[in-house]
Amino acid sequence: MKIAVLGGTGHIGVGIALRFAILGHEVIVGSRSPEKAEAKAKEYLDILKERGIDGKITGMKNEDAAKEAEISILAIPHEHAYSTAEGLKDFLRGKIVVSPIVPMERRGKLLLYNPPQEGSAAERLETILTESRVVSAFQTVPANRFANLDAKFEWDVPVCSNDEDAKKTVMDLINQIEGLRAIDAGPLAVSRLVESITPLLINVMIRNDIKDIGVKFL
Amino acid sequence: MKIAVLGGTGHIGVGIALRFAILGHEVIVGSRSPEKAEAKAKEYLDILKERGIDGKITGMKNEDAAKEAEISILAIPHEHAYSTAEGLKDFLRGKIVVSPIVPMERRGKLLLYNPPQEGSAAERLETILTESRVVSAFQTVPANRFANLDAKFEWDVPVCSNDEDAKKTVMDLINQIEGLRAIDAGPLAVSRLVESITPLLINVMIRNDIKDIGVKFL
Repeated sequence: MKIAVLGGTGHIGVGIALRFAILGHEVIVGSRSPEKAEAKAKEYLDILKERGIDGKITGMKNEDAAKEAEISILAIPHEHAYSTAEGLKDFLRGKIVVSPIVPMERRGKLLLYNPPQEGSAAERLETILTESRVVSAFQTVPANRFANLDAKFEWDVPVCSNDEDAKKTVMDLINQIEGLRAIDAGPLAVSRLVESITPLLINVMIRNDIKDIGVKFL
Repeated sequence: MKIAVLGGTGHIGVGIALRFAILGHEVIVGSRSPEKAEAKAKEYLDILKERGIDGKITGMKNEDAAKEAEISILAIPHEHAYSTAEGLKDFLRGKIVVSPIVPMERRGKLLLYNPPQEGSAAERLETILTESRVVSAFQTVPANRFANLDAKFEWDVPVCSNDEDAKKTVMDLINQIEGLRAIDAGPLAVSRLVESITPLLINVMIRNDIKDIGVKFL
């Protein structure tokens, strides 16, 4: 499939871009700057080349990436996610848009969940991208370890959507990645319960001086 | 230790009562009705006897159980938790009180997290039990499988408290139970992120027709 990782130059998107490229998908790194996107695409291709893997990764500005791809992943920090989605609305029409977005607030040393009034980042996105097929996923996958191609892991990925077909497509994609298991968590209203896990994981990591933990239901 | 399982006649408390008794702790089953508490204590002792285990479990009314014990676990449904705590306030003074309570609301077929304005059930309890040492734990441990002494599991139990010593005591107790690992999740403000996991687990179980799943961070 043609998968755009919008904001794919940041740390959230690296693992997603690399791992889908390894699986043979056509990955498009999107960024506000096409030059930055192209440079990142080259960097990711080099990482694969070092391992003798021939992937297909290109870079372009977010609008073109969204237009080109069948599925777009919004690998964008929460602060810019909604405005970016607003600007890409026309290019994402009718397409699957994956939200790994987690709205958090800092209280002293703690991170807490700070959802918008719609209930969750994913639900807010659905009010913006009214003609897209919004799917919530990847929130609890720790970015750095996921981007490390030598890392071993065994994580569950809860997936929520009000569009059953779109959810199934995203779950199938996730299940292609070794070490990930997609979990059908229901409609988008459940996304708030999934997004809440991310600040919990971060608090646990800071307090216990551990890194990059994900979650497993068992 | 002397551990009271208040509301210990319901399904939340069974596993906790049995497993602490097996470890040699003195367990007091509390209930509004002392007769019911005594009957349950006898039932639990019989379960242990069948396995050749000699535990120490007694039953009494909640007030007496709270007074007698060093640690009380509020194994009470959310609807009655706060009023019960209010009534037991004097008996729980200076003592460790463990909250496994999860406030949930139903929306159609879904369960969502419905915290009080304090942010979480545990934080609300702390505003009621101002002179107790409130610790949040056990929310994500599925009651039925935990009560089944033949069940094998490998679950993490996030523990939150504003009282570091009380938190450590509860974590040590949890770590005595085979298959449980206590996780220091920080102060009580983090409890909302832990309590949120319970409705997520229930939604996942209903949707995927599976039972009794807990959580592991890895």
